Amino acid sequence: MKSGSNFLLAARQCEIAELEQLAQTCELVGVIARFIHALQRERGLSNIYLGSHGAQFTGQREQQILECQAAEAEVRRHLDQLDTGSRHARNGALLFSRVAVVLHALEGLPALRARIARQAMSAAEATAAMVKLVSGLLCVVFEAADTASDPKVSKALVAMFHFMQGKEFAGQERALGGRVFAAGCIDGASLQLWRHLVDSQQGCFQVYADCSDPRVLQADHAARDPAVLAEIERLRRIGCTVRGELDTALSRDWFHWCTRRIDEMKAVEDLLAAHLRELCGRRIEQAQGELRDQRAALDALSARAASQGAATPAPYGPHLERSLFSMVQEQSRRLQAIGDELDAVRTSLNERKLVERAKGLLMAHRQMSEEEAYKALRQMAMNQGRRLVDVAGNVLSLAEVLPAVR
Amino acid sequence: MKSGSNFLLAARQCEIAELEQLAQTCELVGVIARFIHALQRERGLSNIYLGSHGAQFTGQREQQILECQAAEAEVRRHLDQLDTGSRHARNGALLFSRVAVVLHALEGLPALRARIARQAMSAAEATAAMVKLVSGLLCVVFEAADTASDPKVSKALVAMFHFMQGKEFAGQERALGGRVFAAGCIDGASLQLWRHLVDSQQGCFQVYADCSDPRVLQADHAARDPAVLAEIERLRRIGCTVRGELDTALSRDWFHWCTRRIDEMKAVEDLLAAHLRELCGRRIEQAQGELRDQRAALDALSARAASQGAATPAPYGPHLERSLFSMVQEQSRRLQAIGDELDAVRTSLNERKLVERAKGLLMAHRQMSEEEAYKALRQMAMNQGRRLVDVAGNVLSLAEVLPAVR
Repeated sequence: MKSGSNFLLAARQCEIAELEQLAQTCELVGVIARFIHALQRERGLSNIYLGSHGAQFTGQREQQILECQAAEAEVRRHLDQLDTGSRHARNGALLFSRVAVVLHALEGLPALRARIARQAMSAAEATAAMVKLVSGLLCVVFEAADTASDPKVSKALVAMFHFMQGKEFAGQERALGGRVFAAGCIDGASLQLWRHLVDSQQGCFQVYADCSDPRVLQADHAARDPAVLAEIERLRRIGCTVRGELDTALSRDWFHWCTRRIDEMKAVEDLLAAHLRELCGRRIEQAQGELRDQRAALDALSARAASQGAATPAPYGPHLERSLFSMVQEQSRRLQAIGDELDAVRTSLNERKLVERAKGLLMAHRQMSEEEAYKALRQMAMNQGRRLVDVAGNVLSLAEVLPAVR
Repeated sequence: MKSGSNFLLAARQCEIAELEQLAQTCELVGVIARFIHALQRERGLSNIYLGSHGAQFTGQREQQILECQAAEAEVRRHLDQLDTGSRHARNGALLFSRVAVVLHALEGLPALRARIARQAMSAAEATAAMVKLVSGLLCVVFEAADTASDPKVSKALVAMFHFMQGKEFAGQERALGGRVFAAGCIDGASLQLWRHLVDSQQGCFQVYADCSDPRVLQADHAARDPAVLAEIERLRRIGCTVRGELDTALSRDWFHWCTRRIDEMKAVEDLLAAHLRELCGRRIEQAQGELRDQRAALDALSARAASQGAATPAPYGPHLERSLFSMVQEQSRRLQAIGDELDAVRTSLNERKLVERAKGLLMAHRQMSEEEAYKALRQMAMNQGRRLVDVAGNVLSLAEVLPAVR
């Protein structure tokens, strides 16, 4: 018959197993970050390659594709290690289904590259296809952050996700600006989109700053060259306000400075990944130490009970019972507190969930594709000068008065 | 190398495994309900036995203890079957630590019964000890409801938990009223507590009604004899308003009608447990059917791709890719929707969490025991004529201005 102490130790071992699984997920997040970075570079180069009708970056693009393929292989190696056989992964279902989306999207990548190589699509189309792939990869990171069972690790993953998402908006801005400067003029839609991308970056980096360890933020600060952002701001001002002809030569400047900025972000991302790894390792070690202590305390309790002549080690007598009881109570309370803290950390992910839900509603009721639904929300936000999440909330509050879907 | 379809199927299998684990937990909840019911009867009989100085219910009490022991053995059998070896149980840590608390408390039960038998404690003390044991068992049910991974099952568990908690308040009311009628008079504290127990029952049964299947509510309604509640209301009125001498003979009437009411509740509880079992079975069957369909669809896709002369089954060609992609997308969206629905169901558990957190705060800052902290909160609520959860919220909002605990 299992005793209270069996369950006490089992609870602790569950915690350790969850942390170990989490450590594996964090490793996966790290290699996904590297893969996304490689894809972002490829997207940037492909954009200019297409924009220049094949005149620019042909060799660099091919070189970058090789790097991308290496990073992809690394992601696939990590995915192969994910234990899809263990049926008890915490929220494994959602994580696995996000992975399925990514793997499916990757099947289409070689065909996409071939079309770009023979200039059979526009720069905007190529960007859109790669944005979609990156967004699928970011969904895996989001899921990892949302299902992490440790508040500290969860917070670090929330910071990592928002940093990666912010960097992706910066990458999209690089592509958009590249197209605008290459074309030599900007239209109203591009102007709105540009502003949206700048605002979205700010929002993401704010959450990242709120959730990050002060040492990470310090290292981040140290890694940045203030001249880079100044140059980008200058080019943004030119691209976004000059309504007439733009100097098409600025396209290369824009790409150069944006790439420097994104490379700086890459260094910070590596820091964040290292921090995550270290954090997981420390938490596992700590939980293992606590398990050892608890086991030792329980052994001592049984030994004392036996030396006091009790026939069976339990019940232990009033004194020992109180020690065991306080140990059990303390553990429940601690786990409860962890749950509360996790809920608090996850609220920073709720905004994204609201937007996802509003998108789903539009897809169901307006027969829109996912992209169309997102664009519709973004357009509403831009027209009304409000935040995307507020518009999403409004759409959802209308759900009750909408007719039921067939 | 694992493909998208591997992960698609793995996600589905995760869901099934979680449902199977959930079915096991629901079985455990069912036997816990039966055990609690037996403990409640034993508590009621012990109360009158002590109140009558051993003159009443001696034999019935001994008989009831045997029934209790049988129900306890059944709970232990189910606990032994819980897979503490599988380290990946969803939120296993918290569930296991709740179980540890219960098993530890059960160690003290034989000693408690011996003290009651030789009338070495008051009826109030005996009640308090058994209330604590039942509350530990209810914590296991709460945890099961809070960590269920299926919205429908989670909702049914939320209903079950609140019904069991309401029934427990009814049992405490039976004990309190029994003491009051046996003593022949009521003091201010008992009067306040009585009102609190009646209000708490109403709160619990309201959540139960909100979360329950209409068929369950209909069966509930059919199982009740309206005369029972009428008699109880009449006796409540006498006990709570007559300030002078009470007819001590009413003690037996009170016990009779309360017991009839609680036995009726027991019938409803059995219904709820059967409903839960059926629900889990149906959900598992459904998920298995969907897994079969999905597997068949994937096989058909590969076969078609092979017959179209593709060297490898993937990529499948544009048409088949779209089918696979929509399958993957649909699954992610469905799992996302499940997560949202779960969040909504769990909000009905938040009130209890708030109260737990406020209790923890008082214990830390005021060096109170758990019981003292709960009593303090309840007293504040009664004094201010407000709901317990509002008082708890107030206490928590003061947390920031309290000095840090050493």
